[in-house]
Amino acid sequence: MLKTWIPGEAPEKEELKQQLDEARKKLYDLQMKIKEHKLPVLVLFEGWSAAGKGSMIGKVIKNIDPRFFKVATMSAPSEEELRRPFLYRYMCQIPEQGKFTFLDSGWMEQTTQEVLRKELTGEDYEKRIESIRRFERQLTDNGYLVLKFFMQIDKEEQKFRMDKLCSSQDTRWRVSEFDKWQQEHYRKCEKVYDRYLKDTNASTSPWYIIDARDKKWAELQVMDTLVSSIEVALQNQSHSVPILQNIFPLVKMPKLADVELAGKTIDDEEYEKELKKLQSKLSELHNRLYRKRIPVIITYEGWDAAGKGGNIKRITGALDPRGYEVHPIASPEPHEKARHYLWRFWTRLPKDGHIAIFDRTWYGRVMVERLEGFCSENDWKRAYNEMNEFEKELSDWGAVIIKFWVQIDKDTQLARFNDRQNNPEKQWKITDEDWRNREKWDQYEEAVNEMLKKTSTAYAPWHILESVDKKYARIKALKIVIKELEKALK
Amino acid sequence: MLKTWIPGEAPEKEELKQQLDEARKKLYDLQMKIKEHKLPVLVLFEGWSAAGKGSMIGKVIKNIDPRFFKVATMSAPSEEELRRPFLYRYMCQIPEQGKFTFLDSGWMEQTTQEVLRKELTGEDYEKRIESIRRFERQLTDNGYLVLKFFMQIDKEEQKFRMDKLCSSQDTRWRVSEFDKWQQEHYRKCEKVYDRYLKDTNASTSPWYIIDARDKKWAELQVMDTLVSSIEVALQNQSHSVPILQNIFPLVKMPKLADVELAGKTIDDEEYEKELKKLQSKLSELHNRLYRKRIPVIITYEGWDAAGKGGNIKRITGALDPRGYEVHPIASPEPHEKARHYLWRFWTRLPKDGHIAIFDRTWYGRVMVERLEGFCSENDWKRAYNEMNEFEKELSDWGAVIIKFWVQIDKDTQLARFNDRQNNPEKQWKITDEDWRNREKWDQYEEAVNEMLKKTSTAYAPWHILESVDKKYARIKALKIVIKELEKALK
Repeated sequence: MLKTWIPGEAPEKEELKQQLDEARKKLYDLQMKIKEHKLPVLVLFEGWSAAGKGSMIGKVIKNIDPRFFKVATMSAPSEEELRRPFLYRYMCQIPEQGKFTFLDSGWMEQTTQEVLRKELTGEDYEKRIESIRRFERQLTDNGYLVLKFFMQIDKEEQKFRMDKLCSSQDTRWRVSEFDKWQQEHYRKCEKVYDRYLKDTNASTSPWYIIDARDKKWAELQVMDTLVSSIEVALQNQSHSVPILQNIFPLVKMPKLADVELAGKTIDDEEYEKELKKLQSKLSELHNRLYRKRIPVIITYEGWDAAGKGGNIKRITGALDPRGYEVHPIASPEPHEKARHYLWRFWTRLPKDGHIAIFDRTWYGRVMVERLEGFCSENDWKRAYNEMNEFEKELSDWGAVIIKFWVQIDKDTQLARFNDRQNNPEKQWKITDEDWRNREKWDQYEEAVNEMLKKTSTAYAPWHILESVDKKYARIKALKIVIKELEKALK
Repeated sequence: MLKTWIPGEAPEKEELKQQLDEARKKLYDLQMKIKEHKLPVLVLFEGWSAAGKGSMIGKVIKNIDPRFFKVATMSAPSEEELRRPFLYRYMCQIPEQGKFTFLDSGWMEQTTQEVLRKELTGEDYEKRIESIRRFERQLTDNGYLVLKFFMQIDKEEQKFRMDKLCSSQDTRWRVSEFDKWQQEHYRKCEKVYDRYLKDTNASTSPWYIIDARDKKWAELQVMDTLVSSIEVALQNQSHSVPILQNIFPLVKMPKLADVELAGKTIDDEEYEKELKKLQSKLSELHNRLYRKRIPVIITYEGWDAAGKGGNIKRITGALDPRGYEVHPIASPEPHEKARHYLWRFWTRLPKDGHIAIFDRTWYGRVMVERLEGFCSENDWKRAYNEMNEFEKELSDWGAVIIKFWVQIDKDTQLARFNDRQNNPEKQWKITDEDWRNREKWDQYEEAVNEMLKKTSTAYAPWHILESVDKKYARIKALKIVIKELEKALK
């Protein structure tokens, strides 16, 4: 793309000044529309060193109220960030609805640097591109406007600018070792950038190459693109987006009605014996996971009062508290609701070597959010694939993903609800909402069946825990966790 | 303290088991009371390597629902954390109301390690102790229960445990280089720990030394202390705490009524000239600050429609967007409200070398929160000192703190309100709340006068910006910022 790119023609000086004034005014006016329409805008500035990414951001934000934007400077990833999936630190930065985030730079720079250092080649590169494409598509599908600018200057211009920066003590530090290396290997870099731009140029988040030689002209290009893209996005907000076909290998799941619950019991003595044995085994595995730095994600979904809490406790009882975290998921807080629905899960991912246990999960999207109308039909229908993609990302990162559905029948739930209601010590566990949800049992069952069918992938299959006898379910969960961890440790 | 400490006597085995069962049940029952009474509980586990901090936390949390606690493992501070004040990463971890945070370990370990490495001596050590004391007192004053455990084992027991850990490949990694060093220098460490314990033993957050040789006995000591401390804290929740006397050097401030507004104007031509000159100067200073890694905190308070936003814009217009962030402060979100009121400011502190600009600040505590009754009288009366302490902490860290009060008179406000109301493009800037606040002008004025008087410290004085002519105020702000930065760069 870079090589075939034809720079536009800059208007005359006066004309340019006038157009720039207009664009600035438009952007200023648009910020309130963005807020009203709850449009989140993510702007990436990529490009050559010394092409003026930083100062461009400085000019753009002059037209926006500080309440409505954030600038994030992404330097080399920290230790902590390196222990999480590649996209983690970018996902953490996405804006709330009605606001801008400007990234200097986005995920291109880190990726192309890894390519130039020969750390990312062949199939790994393909995988990375695939995951970036999915990431960008998920953002735009979920209503984000994603704008990608590549600031272009040629080799001579770059040399001229770097020499100038290096000539003063106050600015010398701005030229990094990599910048110098890039200047020396301009052609090589150009090839890598060109390929990346081509590989990630999507119609919903296209690249805009900016002729950055003249600063005012560059500003006009950026401002015009910003303004027109925002206008388009505001018009399209109510549009639905295609529901993609599943491309991930699925594992066949039974319907809930066909899950045999009778006879799934264990006697107390056997339970105590097994529990002790399995917990000690799990404890040992936890040590080994930590040393091998394998991340583990265990998720629980299930009927109210199915026994999720007690089940989780038997897992954590075997774990070193320094190496795991339980995330109880309630309804989202305002700052969470204002972002991509997976944001609050991305930001809770464990470090490698650690275990994260989610008590309720992202699958709320296709259960409660679907049934209560908290998202549109297009939203939840799209979510199956989005969650498969999310888990694929985690799986490719090296994570073990274990998903539990804790199953009971309607009568068992009623008995437990009544028990909670009548027992002062347990009353806090039961709310009106639980009773309301119970009335929608059949609708939930249908939604769960669809979820199990569409999201039980080979890399992140669902496991059903028959929990009329809670002890049976606990032992079964421990056995599954142990089996999956042993597989990963091989 | 360690040397004079006399271990209690453990009960007989059967008795111990029974007491432990009781304590566990009590803790289980207390968790709901904690939630009901919105008590936040911060539990620190410090002590010797191999004394069993981690496994103790593991045992304690077995009695608590995962929704109500978090465990934070504080290893050596990361690069990012080292670029912030010492207490930053601990403040980030404090629990919400109604929840526990368990720290393994707290701020003792980092401090004593620095002492042992001879990085923290003499006056710096004294300063550190002072800031830790303040930190703990601020937490308890604001309703936190802070529990500090020191897990004690003697030299022989430690050797025995470490040898055992080292004998197996699966556990060898748990013994760090520092652990080995500590075993070799047990007496030296003991002296340092002893001094620290003495220096930070306050009646509101006392130390509990736990005899950790026998695990069950250690658990009982911890559980009993937890239970009884929680019970006391629940009884004391509505207690007020003493308002401390000011110990910081204050700068005399005029009353708002005595601030001369007339004649504080600038003509347009002069303004444009000055603005350009000052912004270019500031831009240059920003570079130097970055290189010298000096953190800068600029705060804005002032009447509604006083011109804070436009003033901030003239500062940021001169700055590289990669090196600053503007934090517009609105009313707190639920997760912010549930914590110490300074938490949301601590977590927004800049890295060293960066500038953070706060559009409204922690001083909301003594203005809107005071006048609207969002906190108790004891709370806001205590806050003057708490904010002086907070800013002292920042100043000791090396931060430049510049606090602006943007001043206009009541008529000017009315004119600007009307202008906003009548101008469709500006209507979003005015809300019913603004009109309501205006009605309380006199009460606000009194509160502001008290605030200026009590919180204008030598290290973080207030500056008044006369803003009937906004341009005058902008030039004045730029000049003050430049002057303060130049002072810091000397």
